[in-house]
Amino acid sequence: MKSDELFALLRRRGVIWPSAEIYGGAQGLYDYGPLGAGLKRRIEDAWTAWFVGLSHDYYLIDAAEILPEAVVRASGHLENFTDPEVTCDSCHSAFRADTVLEKARPEGVDGLSVAEIEQLVRASGAKCPSCGAKTLRVPPPFNLMFGLDYGVTGHERAYLRPETAQSSYLSFPRMWDVARRALPFGIAIVGKAYRNEIAPRQLLFRMRTFTQAELQIFFDPEHFPLPFDRVREEKLPVVRAARRLAGSEEVELVPAAELVRSGGLPEFYVYHLVHTYRFFRDVLGVPADRIRLLEKSDQERAFYNRIHFDVEVRLESMGGFKEIAGVHYRGDYDLSRHGKGSGKDLSVTLTGGRSVLPHVLELTYGVDRSVWALADVHLHKDGERTLWSLPPYLAPVPVAVFPLIAKEQGAYALRLSDELASAGLPNQYDDAGTIGKRYARMDEAGTPFCVTVDGETVGDGPNHGTVTVRHRDSKAQERLSTADLPARIAPSLRPPRPTRSDAAPSSNAR
Amino acid sequence: MKSDELFALLRRRGVIWPSAEIYGGAQGLYDYGPLGAGLKRRIEDAWTAWFVGLSHDYYLIDAAEILPEAVVRASGHLENFTDPEVTCDSCHSAFRADTVLEKARPEGVDGLSVAEIEQLVRASGAKCPSCGAKTLRVPPPFNLMFGLDYGVTGHERAYLRPETAQSSYLSFPRMWDVARRALPFGIAIVGKAYRNEIAPRQLLFRMRTFTQAELQIFFDPEHFPLPFDRVREEKLPVVRAARRLAGSEEVELVPAAELVRSGGLPEFYVYHLVHTYRFFRDVLGVPADRIRLLEKSDQERAFYNRIHFDVEVRLESMGGFKEIAGVHYRGDYDLSRHGKGSGKDLSVTLTGGRSVLPHVLELTYGVDRSVWALADVHLHKDGERTLWSLPPYLAPVPVAVFPLIAKEQGAYALRLSDELASAGLPNQYDDAGTIGKRYARMDEAGTPFCVTVDGETVGDGPNHGTVTVRHRDSKAQERLSTADLPARIAPSLRPPRPTRSDAAPSSNAR
Repeated sequence: MKSDELFALLRRRGVIWPSAEIYGGAQGLYDYGPLGAGLKRRIEDAWTAWFVGLSHDYYLIDAAEILPEAVVRASGHLENFTDPEVTCDSCHSAFRADTVLEKARPEGVDGLSVAEIEQLVRASGAKCPSCGAKTLRVPPPFNLMFGLDYGVTGHERAYLRPETAQSSYLSFPRMWDVARRALPFGIAIVGKAYRNEIAPRQLLFRMRTFTQAELQIFFDPEHFPLPFDRVREEKLPVVRAARRLAGSEEVELVPAAELVRSGGLPEFYVYHLVHTYRFFRDVLGVPADRIRLLEKSDQERAFYNRIHFDVEVRLESMGGFKEIAGVHYRGDYDLSRHGKGSGKDLSVTLTGGRSVLPHVLELTYGVDRSVWALADVHLHKDGERTLWSLPPYLAPVPVAVFPLIAKEQGAYALRLSDELASAGLPNQYDDAGTIGKRYARMDEAGTPFCVTVDGETVGDGPNHGTVTVRHRDSKAQERLSTADLPARIAPSLRPPRPTRSDAAPSSNAR
Repeated sequence: MKSDELFALLRRRGVIWPSAEIYGGAQGLYDYGPLGAGLKRRIEDAWTAWFVGLSHDYYLIDAAEILPEAVVRASGHLENFTDPEVTCDSCHSAFRADTVLEKARPEGVDGLSVAEIEQLVRASGAKCPSCGAKTLRVPPPFNLMFGLDYGVTGHERAYLRPETAQSSYLSFPRMWDVARRALPFGIAIVGKAYRNEIAPRQLLFRMRTFTQAELQIFFDPEHFPLPFDRVREEKLPVVRAARRLAGSEEVELVPAAELVRSGGLPEFYVYHLVHTYRFFRDVLGVPADRIRLLEKSDQERAFYNRIHFDVEVRLESMGGFKEIAGVHYRGDYDLSRHGKGSGKDLSVTLTGGRSVLPHVLELTYGVDRSVWALADVHLHKDGERTLWSLPPYLAPVPVAVFPLIAKEQGAYALRLSDELASAGLPNQYDDAGTIGKRYARMDEAGTPFCVTVDGETVGDGPNHGTVTVRHRDSKAQERLSTADLPARIAPSLRPPRPTRSDAAPSSNAR
């Protein structure tokens, strides 16, 4: 589906809609209706089960979204978290410089100075995209953080965090104790981040408040033990930076072991890249040929990232591959900066007495973008019907309960709906319209199991206490006893988990 | 435990700690470590299961935390969401007026004008609590919202929402369609709210970013069908406003039916008050004699609240009863204000053609406060040991897996840990220290089930494949087959649910 068509469908079904619509909306803000909120929560749970489940030493925490100014000064965000902007002196509109210069400089404007961008604008004769005047100007770069007047005196300044990662770095000293003073360990956060985007377009892809799921892994650069053998044969769909610089974006399928042996990537990096790829393929259910791992070149990646691959998914609605996640080897940049900024030495002493400033491997993931991607990838037409073929553990409403005839089996079906909920099967009761219409509604909502109570269920015959279970994708039906439903359905509602490292939790302090 | 002692324990165990500690912290901001984040998430899930589970017509959504200025102007927050403040001209400190005037006016300063507060400060001879000077001044009331410069032009203004409720009101028109154009229906949000508190003290009780769980129920004031008979005999521990005005805060146990018949409260209100009380008693496990439902008087409640009870829990650490939740009958204030503010008529047409502007019943609940309350209520000493007697479905780590001897049963126990996780039993592996020490650690973490793998488990004898399950509160042990663990443990990890209304979802539009 095209972007407009998909958005219209999602809006009609109560998945997402623009925020504050009765006030004319607000650019870059979206709300999630019941189906969207359910899907989002399940994606978060699946991400947590998968990534925090990778090791006994990876932990999920939760942290304040407000950062004191000293934090973002140390992290570099106060100085560098900017987008080059172009404004129009005639109509006072503002634009991202890369958008205005899309034709003149398709490779983007990262790394260019204000003067260089100004020159490009002049040389290209660019006009204002809004009013058409040739009165474009390049002001100083625009900081994307939302600042807050914090406290009552008006003298304190704080910021909404532009990424959850900073909260994890601040928690490092406490978590060092929780992790029993041993490396490696990981800190995961699923939470909000905020950016005052210059041009918040592209729906859920550039929002001003959005949900990130990020895992920061702190490790000793000299020693990161992991079961690499388990992943060595996995073939990864990579586009290496060198190949891109040579002009090709073609995907190569390269075995993990090969990426280490001749590809120059460390084992710890490839191990986590494999699991990120598997998350998209095996947990989100994205077809392998729609996923690529795109390496950023020296020019493209942030200077503190030593290795940077984006995970991109090909989305029909967005006209091509879009970034959903990233794997960043950040070296000791973060703890080093916060050590300097706070005046606290953040290096740690390992068993044996060696002191080390831990390095960071960051796995970052956009939850909102995933909601959209899962609609693009799994929502499709199948003849007459519209079908959302979500994996069962991601379906916002995993089970529907119908009475065939409301007046006759309604009470029984309502009771069954309660019993299934208590047995761990979230479900929705529906008795409106024909069974066919109800199936169609649930197909569109992605519900994998529809349970129908009929005359035989409530009657005295041999089928007493049995119901019809209809499967979404195959439309196959089977007759089951209500008592068997939890055992039959519940396992498919649990998201897949990786096999954890065989190693027991690390521990210096036993 | 006293507040300091409890906080020290929670900090040591990685439940909560002050945010940005390495930078000296930030008033009113706290982070949740793994145990705290786990507990918080489970409280949210239990709240959702209970309250959204009350009716087929109550829905959970998720919405942007940023509100355009027009929204908070219409809601009245721009004008009225203020706290009277007192500042010191000598040391430039700021204080809440009610704190400074605690002795002079114990009933608080709600409703007083700046001039009246100024007079009280003079008359009482109050000194600056910080520097002791008699140079206190009363500036104009301080707005507690965080404002944002929104967008790039600098001309747009937006605010971080001071309560999740506003997001629900904005979603009303869309949700009217989702709920198939019939009343009543409910919109629940579990999410962040933000307040620039003048004096963010009392730990998790006055934070600057905090999590609310709120349910807004939209209904026809002439007709709110519900199964009141199910709750009519429940005795509620109320303190009525009239009695409080007469000088007594004593709790009366009054049956629900009585509160309607002679107490002047509508059935729909008492029905939801009962379920709120039951949530505290039956889901959070707070002893009944530590809960009271305190009615606010005309003077105390916001003018738009027609009926207002707070749910308070007696907390040893806080020296008495503290507000954790509230039940507010807000009339048509919200939809009326947003109708005027947006210029859109928000009244709806019911089956039969009658037009109505829905009334709102608000159930509001503080998640962070609950984390603290559950520590105060359930964390206690039992002889030598410290024990967190959380209900199993709230325990952040429901299961622990130990090998008796790491070298001999470690591999088996690690495998079992993975298997249990895949079977829906979140767990933590631990092989550090004696079994006694490991029990002690898990007792403090609130883990209800400790599973020990020993020589018999891995041996060839009759106990092959069986483990010892040790129960936290009773210390009782039993021998179970590993295959039986999920069936034995999983049901206790599902939070209780109310019986839903027998009525099918309402629906005009079938």
